[in-house]
Amino acid sequence: MTSSPCLVNSPNGHIPASQRIPAIARPFVSPRALKTLDAVEKFVEEECIPADAVYNQALGETTQERFSAHPQIMEDLKAKAKQLGLWNMFLPRNHFANEGAGYSNLEYGIMAEYLGRSLTASEATNCAAPDTGNMEVFAKYGTEEQKKKWLRPLLDGEIRSGFLMTEPQVASSDATNIELSMKEDGDYFVLNGQKWWASGVGDLRTKVFLVMGKSDPTNANKYKQQTVIAVSSDTPGITIKRMLSVLGYDDAPHGHGHVYFDNVRVHKSNVILGEGRGFEVVQGRLGPGRIHHAMRSVGAAEKALEYFLARVNDPRKRPFGKQLSEHGIMLERIARSRIEIDAARLAVLNAAIMIDQGDAKHALKEIAEVKVQVPRMLQEIVDRAIQAYGAGGVSQDFPLANMASGARTMRIVDGPDEVHMLQLGRNENKRGKALLSKIEAQKQKTQALLKQYDMEEKDILQLDRRSGPSSKL
Amino acid sequence: MTSSPCLVNSPNGHIPASQRIPAIARPFVSPRALKTLDAVEKFVEEECIPADAVYNQALGETTQERFSAHPQIMEDLKAKAKQLGLWNMFLPRNHFANEGAGYSNLEYGIMAEYLGRSLTASEATNCAAPDTGNMEVFAKYGTEEQKKKWLRPLLDGEIRSGFLMTEPQVASSDATNIELSMKEDGDYFVLNGQKWWASGVGDLRTKVFLVMGKSDPTNANKYKQQTVIAVSSDTPGITIKRMLSVLGYDDAPHGHGHVYFDNVRVHKSNVILGEGRGFEVVQGRLGPGRIHHAMRSVGAAEKALEYFLARVNDPRKRPFGKQLSEHGIMLERIARSRIEIDAARLAVLNAAIMIDQGDAKHALKEIAEVKVQVPRMLQEIVDRAIQAYGAGGVSQDFPLANMASGARTMRIVDGPDEVHMLQLGRNENKRGKALLSKIEAQKQKTQALLKQYDMEEKDILQLDRRSGPSSKL
Amino acid sequence: MTSSPCLVNSPNGHIPASQRIPAIARPFVSPRALKTLDAVEKFVEEECIPADAVYNQALGETTQERFSAHPQIMEDLKAKAKQLGLWNMFLPRNHFANEGAGYSNLEYGIMAEYLGRSLTASEATNCAAPDTGNMEVFAKYGTEEQKKKWLRPLLDGEIRSGFLMTEPQVASSDATNIELSMKEDGDYFVLNGQKWWASGVGDLRTKVFLVMGKSDPTNANKYKQQTVIAVSSDTPGITIKRMLSVLGYDDAPHGHGHVYFDNVRVHKSNVILGEGRGFEVVQGRLGPGRIHHAMRSVGAAEKALEYFLARVNDPRKRPFGKQLSEHGIMLERIARSRIEIDAARLAVLNAAIMIDQGDAKHALKEIAEVKVQVPRMLQEIVDRAIQAYGAGGVSQDFPLANMASGARTMRIVDGPDEVHMLQLGRNENKRGKALLSKIEAQKQKTQALLKQYDMEEKDILQLDRRSGPSSKL
Amino acid sequence: MTSSPCLVNSPNGHIPASQRIPAIARPFVSPRALKTLDAVEKFVEEECIPADAVYNQALGETTQERFSAHPQIMEDLKAKAKQLGLWNMFLPRNHFANEGAGYSNLEYGIMAEYLGRSLTASEATNCAAPDTGNMEVFAKYGTEEQKKKWLRPLLDGEIRSGFLMTEPQVASSDATNIELSMKEDGDYFVLNGQKWWASGVGDLRTKVFLVMGKSDPTNANKYKQQTVIAVSSDTPGITIKRMLSVLGYDDAPHGHGHVYFDNVRVHKSNVILGEGRGFEVVQGRLGPGRIHHAMRSVGAAEKALEYFLARVNDPRKRPFGKQLSEHGIMLERIARSRIEIDAARLAVLNAAIMIDQGDAKHALKEIAEVKVQVPRMLQEIVDRAIQAYGAGGVSQDFPLANMASGARTMRIVDGPDEVHMLQLGRNENKRGKALLSKIEAQKQKTQALLKQYDMEEKDILQLDRRSGPSSKL
Repeated sequence: MTSSPCLVNSPNGHIPASQRIPAIARPFVSPRALKTLDAVEKFVEEECIPADAVYNQALGETTQERFSAHPQIMEDLKAKAKQLGLWNMFLPRNHFANEGAGYSNLEYGIMAEYLGRSLTASEATNCAAPDTGNMEVFAKYGTEEQKKKWLRPLLDGEIRSGFLMTEPQVASSDATNIELSMKEDGDYFVLNGQKWWASGVGDLRTKVFLVMGKSDPTNANKYKQQTVIAVSSDTPGITIKRMLSVLGYDDAPHGHGHVYFDNVRVHKSNVILGEGRGFEVVQGRLGPGRIHHAMRSVGAAEKALEYFLARVNDPRKRPFGKQLSEHGIMLERIARSRIEIDAARLAVLNAAIMIDQGDAKHALKEIAEVKVQVPRMLQEIVDRAIQAYGAGGVSQDFPLANMASGARTMRIVDGPDEVHMLQLGRNENKRGKALLSKIEAQKQKTQALLKQYDMEEKDILQLDRRSGPSSKL
Repeated sequence: MTSSPCLVNSPNGHIPASQRIPAIARPFVSPRALKTLDAVEKFVEEECIPADAVYNQALGETTQERFSAHPQIMEDLKAKAKQLGLWNMFLPRNHFANEGAGYSNLEYGIMAEYLGRSLTASEATNCAAPDTGNMEVFAKYGTEEQKKKWLRPLLDGEIRSGFLMTEPQVASSDATNIELSMKEDGDYFVLNGQKWWASGVGDLRTKVFLVMGKSDPTNANKYKQQTVIAVSSDTPGITIKRMLSVLGYDDAPHGHGHVYFDNVRVHKSNVILGEGRGFEVVQGRLGPGRIHHAMRSVGAAEKALEYFLARVNDPRKRPFGKQLSEHGIMLERIARSRIEIDAARLAVLNAAIMIDQGDAKHALKEIAEVKVQVPRMLQEIVDRAIQAYGAGGVSQDFPLANMASGARTMRIVDGPDEVHMLQLGRNENKRGKALLSKIEAQKQKTQALLKQYDMEEKDILQLDRRSGPSSKL
Repeated sequence: MTSSPCLVNSPNGHIPASQRIPAIARPFVSPRALKTLDAVEKFVEEECIPADAVYNQALGETTQERFSAHPQIMEDLKAKAKQLGLWNMFLPRNHFANEGAGYSNLEYGIMAEYLGRSLTASEATNCAAPDTGNMEVFAKYGTEEQKKKWLRPLLDGEIRSGFLMTEPQVASSDATNIELSMKEDGDYFVLNGQKWWASGVGDLRTKVFLVMGKSDPTNANKYKQQTVIAVSSDTPGITIKRMLSVLGYDDAPHGHGHVYFDNVRVHKSNVILGEGRGFEVVQGRLGPGRIHHAMRSVGAAEKALEYFLARVNDPRKRPFGKQLSEHGIMLERIARSRIEIDAARLAVLNAAIMIDQGDAKHALKEIAEVKVQVPRMLQEIVDRAIQAYGAGGVSQDFPLANMASGARTMRIVDGPDEVHMLQLGRNENKRGKALLSKIEAQKQKTQALLKQYDMEEKDILQLDRRSGPSSKL
Repeated sequence: MTSSPCLVNSPNGHIPASQRIPAIARPFVSPRALKTLDAVEKFVEEECIPADAVYNQALGETTQERFSAHPQIMEDLKAKAKQLGLWNMFLPRNHFANEGAGYSNLEYGIMAEYLGRSLTASEATNCAAPDTGNMEVFAKYGTEEQKKKWLRPLLDGEIRSGFLMTEPQVASSDATNIELSMKEDGDYFVLNGQKWWASGVGDLRTKVFLVMGKSDPTNANKYKQQTVIAVSSDTPGITIKRMLSVLGYDDAPHGHGHVYFDNVRVHKSNVILGEGRGFEVVQGRLGPGRIHHAMRSVGAAEKALEYFLARVNDPRKRPFGKQLSEHGIMLERIARSRIEIDAARLAVLNAAIMIDQGDAKHALKEIAEVKVQVPRMLQEIVDRAIQAYGAGGVSQDFPLANMASGARTMRIVDGPDEVHMLQLGRNENKRGKALLSKIEAQKQKTQALLKQYDMEEKDILQLDRRSGPSSKL
């Protein structure tokens, strides 16, 4: 790496990431994290981003090729990242002092922003979904045997994993609708049903799936009917029926699978946390993951803005005799983007701190806010950048088209915006009755004050119309 | 076709297209066009839309396959369309009484709305870009020889054509920037340079390219430097370097090519209209094409709304115990979409009438308005429909994801929104000085009236503060 | 008037209104209406707009003054308008051949656009709300006695009228909630209750109120419980408790009153149409009124855009050394405004034609669309114009601040947007089930076609993962 | 105050302000400030808000009355505030340890949020503009004599002050345009010219104006031509020509004046900081003021949201048989408002910290961001709340209409959005060239990697078309 062109600490006045943290977040970042942050930025800009296009081309063209590929460049990046100590930063130190790299959610958040600029960086540092959430699950709830079998190789980046929750036939944004059947048969569960948007199942290296099913469909408590179980990917009866595309992209080799379960037998020792505790497993998993997504989205937005800025300064692009950067409309969009990204970042960091100071449950409101705010922001900013590029912007020549697909999809992943809005709205609405009372009490006090200050109660606007209006005409 | 399920005139109360034309447009539509319109609707809904997925699957998977394919189902659709008299409706009767089907731009517009609902319908009725524009060019400006060689087989749907204008190295939204060199060499022009976003070049059936180049680079009038020439697609020296993707889609088999010209010799008899008249050729081509795009977009938006409506009534999708159609937020988006589509349609139809009553030049303002309004509308409405589908919406299971790509791209095709906005803004701004004078004259008249009605000129709000304000404290 | 500066037909190239009608609307406008239209434009620009500020200043300052004033300039304008034949243009010829000026709703619509540019023009031409709607009611449903007593002087501009429907204690956007009690007592109704937003009651010249009350509260049909009755404004028991302001403006002298009814006795001969038919009366009244509002709003938007254009060409306003019109952001907003106004106008005109070809019921969808689309458009455009003026824009020095108040309020008047959106959404949603069936049928046909064309049914994306994925690592 | 109904610490579960500070801001707030914050909330909710309507009514009706009034209730509120130690919190402790209450900008910011909920609270705690900025100026730059004469009584709330910068004839958003002439005449300056939007001049208690004029018009450095001078409000030659209204509101008694200077002689001892240093004076004044405005706006937005929440829970408002809070569209707007307010607050607090850690210059970007983001947020949220109230929302019955006026105006005050956007955009654009280089370098590294990994350079999409495309047809 010593021979890399020094892109980020160049003499062109680049200010390192550690010095660009919002002032309000600084008290929460340790000197060690600051140092790592700068290393992450350098690794992403100098190693990962140049590798992105190489990795993508190495995947090949047909579906069969693309979901069987495992380009060598990824292993080389992983080796570099490990050597630099950029590995497993996502596991927060308050809960996973031993397994992870020892950073807080906030500290990892500001690093994830840089990972979000590259297609390859998250996997290269072993911080890629759905492995991150799955590792958290194993670390938190796994038996020693499960940890040995799955967590260890995941932490080492030797295998990958899938997460299977959503189902095609039901409205999965409401997880109580989930139907995949888990029937007991002695020491085994027998699984039957379908999953889709099964993230990670496309990859040949994926060895384990976390699957949520309905093990106790008649339980009176509808949040106790589900169980999560770890399923070895080579268990008979599992068929990856097809891979789903996302606005034209296949996200190979990891991808999003439509998976059929046909009498898949899994030993009960693979149950996570306990039968009937599937909801608990899944909910603990979501909070930090949303923060990771959100901070990567902030990073992606910064990258889109950088491309935008580069374009308007491209000396070859001078429509109507003026550099694009001299068109006021472009500067206005850049300014708006700057404002929106900075606002989004603060919201995510605040949510991360809330998680650090308690847990994801503690930060429900903040996470929901971020879940709505950030993807919309990213979609908007990528869209603006594309527009500045004209036709080039929608083509494969720039990363923006692919980013647009991811950005749009973020508004749906982990529950569409509307679900989070509804939850936020209902939560706020709880204050409604108390506020009605407060405002009423304030009005009464106003009446008392009017009396106290001897101000006539009559409405000063009252008109007398009884005395012949016609007389005036 | 008699065995087709009757989708559009079914007893479920479907009102045929001819009866859903906006009241304000009716005086402009002949009874014959009304009848054709209903036939188009029926053909699109019952034949083309079901064929869309078949056609797409038949194209294959690799680039090489997809750009060499020519699925039989398309020829079968074309045969049906011809038999139904649904052929070449795009050629307006006022200019092309002989070549086309004899409809006005407005009449074709309301038909194009239905073509826009399907991937296959435009080609099936020989109304697909860029052939439509190219046929207009040949019909309007072509020599007899050119017509015989290119126009006839195009009108018959036997060959296809490409249009090559945009270049990768310059800001092509300003067409004076175009650089492809055309040097005279006896009776020939020798072409050197690159084109991209060359629509139609991917297709094996494409036999002719219309190419704009710079034949007279030192002409003092920068609108006289260009020439358009018809180039046989198998002329030596032409290389299709690669096909460009559009937000993840390749639009095969027609596609968007990046094409190199390396000493391509073309006989001067292929020049269109005349040397140095390239601008004239190109400009006449754009107006109606924009109307076609716009009306197809209106149709696409209607289709997206139909999918939206179908989804919120899907009995299996009941998040939180309520049908989606019972969620007020969904109804509000549906209503908003209804308003926006209807407004857009009126704008396009009005522009079409302007073209019918004069020509595209006559309708510059109206076309520019439509060019900006319609793609944004479509993008928004497709986006809303996708959101109602959740993850399914971005997948290949519904046409919405593909439509999103097309919708977004429409904001760039034929010049990005900003170019049209700038042109519209400048045009409006011409009135500025006259308006400043008018407002000034109105103010002076107000002064005269105040005097006439004996109203004091003093400002009634004037305050006297000189007499010791302190005295009041 | 011969001495007026010729503002609108000046040699600066002004194109008269009759030549700026959208092409699509022309078949619906008679030569007589075209001539009147130009006369309206001239009257508004040269007489009314200069009079606006004079009229406003003549009203005085205190509430008592402002709601007792009746400036002479208004009577002078009315005299001029009558002389020019610009009187009662609002009464559509298909229903009121005798009473009105003989124009269609569409023809009056394009005139109303010009009236909407001035504070005084509507009243000056006897086309001001709520008199217009009230005159329609009397003309359509009134007895001969009622016509003689109220309609005649209203048509002659000798008296004014009020319309009293909304009540402060209930959600009046749903008119079945209305509570003002009408108890029979022999030949009389006795009215008790409150009304607010009683338009027109502030004016001393207002002689009659149309009041909707609940006369039959126990009727099983909740649309038969209401009666509309004409009440002489000097009937004992009526108190105008206060006048309501609208975002800081009092809209004097007509205004919006909060009115108390305390045992107000009204003879039954004043009932309109019949007891229990209040809904019928009120609903017939609303449609055309919404079109009038909408077209005036289009005119107001044009005026705001004219002020915008004048400002950016003001030679004294050169922030940062550039004329405002050279700032791209300003031109972009002007272009956007142009697009939005033109789209709104077409929507209103189309709705007007629907009414002309049937009645308001026939045009429910179109009216609801316009009711939502137009006020938002106006609010947005006035807001942009204000921004171009900076602080001046919010002050009394330009008409924009006052227009902003009216524009915002339009989104609430005659039912807030949300009510119309809900109605539109529900109406569209009726198609949902049929569309679900259609799409299902199309999918089935696709399956049949795949079979017919011998295309394998297998999903080409299927992956085989059972054969040891680990072997590849 | 002991008898006040306890509105904010009631048993209905109200969480005090100190516990609702965003987690990310907590490290910056001292225990003392937390205590004061709760006292501010209590004072505002229980004393000021009930007093708002009383104060407004006490002002009277005519301009003359309203700008001469000084209601006793304000002095009573001031006495209470002083007694509670809620006085002069705005003066930041790092620069004004002696003069102020000893809080940081951030600490005052979170208090100002509560002041922003009331019309009277800012003045009641001596934290009202323009006095705050003027006191900062005197404290920072004033001579001992100036401090004694003006600062002391301002700090004690005995007098008020005006700030006069904007001029009607020029584009004042660019302050170099300012023209008011200051000619030397011995020990005096003689002032001639006009000012408008002169905040504070309406009030009878205003004793001093800070006036910016042009003292050295020929200075080569256009930022050295201006001088700020303190002018006693009773100096001969000053005429308050009229008061300007703001979207229909007069903001009496403080107001916005149009002031004429006619040979106004002011002794040079009144010059602030020094001749030619006017820009310096003015610029230091603006940063914190923008933060104050912004935090008050956040508070106003919270208040609007509270009114919104109260309304949707009003049991009397049930359009179409459903409580407004059961309408999904209302919950969605509430959620959106929650997200936007919380995001805005974080942005302001971060900017405040930047100022605390340096000065306003240090925080230019952050202040500009907030200046654009916050007023738009407020305008939007007030608008939504108004819509939930229907017609009531635009009337004088709720504080929302008045808030709408203030919110809109905020987008213009201290420079319209566009000026800040332009500045932000240009600032960002400085990075453009470096980013272009970085992206270019990354592309080159990609090329090197392709070579290193032995991946063919050929474009995999290349098509061969030279071999007879016709053969396929």
